[in-house]
Amino acid sequence: MDSGVIYLALLHHPVRNRGGQVITAALTNLDVHDIARAARTYGVKAYYLVTPVAGQQALARSLVAHWLEGRGGEVNPDRREALCLVRLARDLNEVCREVLAETGQRPRLIATTALGEGASIGWSALRKMFQDEKGPTVLLFGTASGLDQSVLSEADAILEPIHGRGAYNHLSVRSAVAVALDRLLGTRD
Amino acid sequence: MDSGVIYLALLHHPVRNRGGQVITAALTNLDVHDIARAARTYGVKAYYLVTPVAGQQALARSLVAHWLEGRGGEVNPDRREALCLVRLARDLNEVCREVLAETGQRPRLIATTALGEGASIGWSALRKMFQDEKGPTVLLFGTASGLDQSVLSEADAILEPIHGRGAYNHLSVRSAVAVALDRLLGTRD
Repeated sequence: MDSGVIYLALLHHPVRNRGGQVITAALTNLDVHDIARAARTYGVKAYYLVTPVAGQQALARSLVAHWLEGRGGEVNPDRREALCLVRLARDLNEVCREVLAETGQRPRLIATTALGEGASIGWSALRKMFQDEKGPTVLLFGTASGLDQSVLSEADAILEPIHGRGAYNHLSVRSAVAVALDRLLGTRD
Repeated sequence: MDSGVIYLALLHHPVRNRGGQVITAALTNLDVHDIARAARTYGVKAYYLVTPVAGQQALARSLVAHWLEGRGGEVNPDRREALCLVRLARDLNEVCREVLAETGQRPRLIATTALGEGASIGWSALRKMFQDEKGPTVLLFGTASGLDQSVLSEADAILEPIHGRGAYNHLSVRSAVAVALDRLLGTRD
């Protein structure tokens, strides 16, 4: 099954805290690792860590370099294979410009939310869209309590939340990305 | 959809390292949090952290207490709601004894592996089994490079690995648990 070219972007700004205020979240090491490994597993083209903070970008570069060029990748080549998907960007515009330069097409932006505010596309519809319309897509995830409204408004569509059983909707972003990639790109019996 | 009573167990021993040797892995804080949150999302009855090391059990108790009784749960009650599912056990026998005492039935043990060695049940078959046979089930996951053969041999069935796209099979255990729960217990359009 060909699903076009799929990119991931994990935004650290603008995201909301539990009180609904817009913040810039700090980088979390296991967000880098777990999501890169999931991206590699499901054939994602690249995984953008998006933060406007120069010091955080430098930290991310140094984390990733340990696995690409340093001792980490020698000891664990599987991890290197995942972390080579990681790219850095200051904001969503920079992501879109890079994807446009790489693919020749402006990407479709699909935002995610745990709250369901303005959700406009379901899982099977998006899966089908990936198969029918081959242009590049960027799946947007937010750290902290999720993407700010300004990002949701900018997206071409907002994906239906992951429903488990009942109303509890507090998966980690690492878990949410893994489940989303499996629903959209996984193969199963 | 009623799927019977599902338990999770994350084993830190006996698991294998990358070289295939049996080791006891150390507790990882985000394994506790991410998997408890996924367990709560998908209606799992309890999440067992299994380690034979008394010091690691004490560490786990103290981590969880911060969220159940301490400041953590006051600030973030959603996290408390997830972490109250965490239980500690020395080994798989202790898990089985507790589940038997709680449900009156010896649980069915379903082991997981990323390697596919001896896989004996697929995702849809297990999903169906949950619906048809209501007894308690413990889903077994291994830290490090996965459950040792002795655990796989003891299980009633070994679940087919999570296939993404291609041969890369290095999801974090946090991601693997989330995807497995979504495949087995999730609802989707």
